[in-house]
Amino acid sequence: MQKSSDDAIAYNIVPFTWPKGYKSDGVQAGLSKDKKDMGWIYSEQPAQAAGTYTTNQFQAAPTKITKQTINLDHKLQAVIVNSANANSVTGNQGDIDVKKEQQLVSEKLNIDPDLVGVASTGVIGQNLPMGIIEKGINSLQLLDNDNVTTAILTTDKHAKTISTQLTIDGQTVTISGFCKGSGMIHPNMATMLGFVVTDAKVADGLLQPILSHEVDSTFNQITVDGDTSTNDMVVTMANGCANNELLTEQSEQYPAFVAAFNKVLAELAKDIAADGEGATKLVEVNVQNAYDKVEAQQVAKAVVGSSLVKTAIFGNDANWGRIVAAVGQTNAHVDIDHTSVWINYVPIVKNSASTDFDESQMKDELAKKVITVTVDLNSGTATGQAWGCDLTYDYVRINASYRS
Amino acid sequence: MQKSSDDAIAYNIVPFTWPKGYKSDGVQAGLSKDKKDMGWIYSEQPAQAAGTYTTNQFQAAPTKITKQTINLDHKLQAVIVNSANANSVTGNQGDIDVKKEQQLVSEKLNIDPDLVGVASTGVIGQNLPMGIIEKGINSLQLLDNDNVTTAILTTDKHAKTISTQLTIDGQTVTISGFCKGSGMIHPNMATMLGFVVTDAKVADGLLQPILSHEVDSTFNQITVDGDTSTNDMVVTMANGCANNELLTEQSEQYPAFVAAFNKVLAELAKDIAADGEGATKLVEVNVQNAYDKVEAQQVAKAVVGSSLVKTAIFGNDANWGRIVAAVGQTNAHVDIDHTSVWINYVPIVKNSASTDFDESQMKDELAKKVITVTVDLNSGTATGQAWGCDLTYDYVRINASYRS
Repeated sequence: MQKSSDDAIAYNIVPFTWPKGYKSDGVQAGLSKDKKDMGWIYSEQPAQAAGTYTTNQFQAAPTKITKQTINLDHKLQAVIVNSANANSVTGNQGDIDVKKEQQLVSEKLNIDPDLVGVASTGVIGQNLPMGIIEKGINSLQLLDNDNVTTAILTTDKHAKTISTQLTIDGQTVTISGFCKGSGMIHPNMATMLGFVVTDAKVADGLLQPILSHEVDSTFNQITVDGDTSTNDMVVTMANGCANNELLTEQSEQYPAFVAAFNKVLAELAKDIAADGEGATKLVEVNVQNAYDKVEAQQVAKAVVGSSLVKTAIFGNDANWGRIVAAVGQTNAHVDIDHTSVWINYVPIVKNSASTDFDESQMKDELAKKVITVTVDLNSGTATGQAWGCDLTYDYVRINASYRS
Repeated sequence: MQKSSDDAIAYNIVPFTWPKGYKSDGVQAGLSKDKKDMGWIYSEQPAQAAGTYTTNQFQAAPTKITKQTINLDHKLQAVIVNSANANSVTGNQGDIDVKKEQQLVSEKLNIDPDLVGVASTGVIGQNLPMGIIEKGINSLQLLDNDNVTTAILTTDKHAKTISTQLTIDGQTVTISGFCKGSGMIHPNMATMLGFVVTDAKVADGLLQPILSHEVDSTFNQITVDGDTSTNDMVVTMANGCANNELLTEQSEQYPAFVAAFNKVLAELAKDIAADGEGATKLVEVNVQNAYDKVEAQQVAKAVVGSSLVKTAIFGNDANWGRIVAAVGQTNAHVDIDHTSVWINYVPIVKNSASTDFDESQMKDELAKKVITVTVDLNSGTATGQAWGCDLTYDYVRINASYRS
């Protein structure tokens, strides 16, 4: 069994910092009673932009309109974001309110409204109180603080941020990301929101394929309860202020840039999984020797998404039958006589039969905060990963009483 | 909104009884410490037989071999069943043990081993203790008791049985079914097992299409946590002892027979959903005005399977945003501006916006033991149903500690 490892590191992880040319702020406008609820990001010059968006048919107004806005010219200069109200399933008024937000931000910053992205998270089905929104926009400033990283949170226990740096053409390039999770598992609170900003100078049309490709193996490989919110969105901006030579797929440093970009997404995704509602453990599933990458990721997500696997892990129970059954539920190629499973790298199933593992040792392993499940399908050479968390009493408590 | 109702009743529901020509028994052979664990069904003459089987790739040995056996000649004369051990993921020895069971039963009953079905439910990954199995088979008799209906149970709170009767060609035809559930939500305990036996005389090749078609809208429309076990199987037998004229698709009473057959499956399926592990409520989702039946059933199952909807119902919370979000996760045709939702027939969403419903009235409705969610997609005329249960602390408790 292969232990997973990062690719050769061509970047450094540094304390969260804004890349060159970005300003930000966050305030308590009054949407929420007890925390900051609005924030923004501003780039001194229009940035290349790309996004990925929820597949839920009830796509929230800000998600829908931000997608339209980015698709106009693949550029953004500012993003305004609020928590406590998702502006989702809000009809035509929801669209009108988003456009009003774009207008208000564009006037305050003296930029084109088509360069303003809008993101919201919170309760579904209520129109935005536009008086509070307008007051919030008026009070936001162009600062260096990280208030926006907490302003977007809902029931998240902590802010989720990361910055990576690498050198391209002798210039320091910074890629910084932040996100809110928990909401991934509340379609009512709605919203996994992720933002990645960089000062790299990248070629036209390059950012969207990088984002789409890297989201597939990171944010799209986490699950808490299989529910996809109406507001999920990841937006990325690259403003070129690092003054590297224009980055293209042919650039020598392109692979390092993509690796650093992937690292930002992967760490944020794992952070969301670990902070899933009620979670006590991060669960990482590594699938190896799969037929292809798609199937590897599919199997990894099936295992990490199984309620029975999740409850067993909560209960420190090395219940491998549930892992094998979750694998078998997929239509991936599986060598059903030669499937093997490890928990925290200790073999518990070899060739589809129980190993003579030590139950008490396994209980100790399962009591740890990070549980790594490895599954070998003996059907190829591809690998895939997925992340999730255990299913606990607190998940039920929080979700049985959320609206009350 | 249409309330669902049974078709015109051409059959009666009667207390559980064996149809003509069947004998049965159940005993405590010793696989389980505290309950009956083996049973059988025997038909005086070889019966037409049909089955539906789990789609899990790790299909248990008894499921696989019973399927092969039925496919030989579409006939069975006996079924032997045990709880406490699923004989699943047990390798070649698992197959050998199933064939030994067929041999032992055939010798005791003096019938062809190819007329013996085998079903098992219990823990995955342990070989059957064949000494106990043989002792069990030796102690089973040909009686009229319903011991087998409890011998198949695992954590089910009660036996699930139903009998319907109708008159065909002046003869009383009985269709009787029993099943075990709970296991549907334990791939480790494995197994939803269902058995439907009738004394109807049916034409060759008729039973399998009836079973497959009716299972699609009944057993295949229940979900507790989305996990499909390795042992799921529904087996049906029709021995002709009622002495009706041969039933074909052209028979006048064919629709009534199918309706009675469907009723048996539907009531057993609902009984499994209501007795899902930790469940306090049965949840029925009715989808109407869908594009087609497949999409109606898909949406119904998505709503009833959403962990967020299930926890909201446990918490008596009329959290309609979660219902709408679950609908939107499917790729079914949805009129996203004209979707409506009712809970217990009280409108809570009309044209994709909240109605002015009374929260305290809704709390009272949600405190009931049966919750009916109706969703109107405004996209066609098709209807579909699905059944499930709420997600509770007890679900987590039971599944976090099952093996221990």
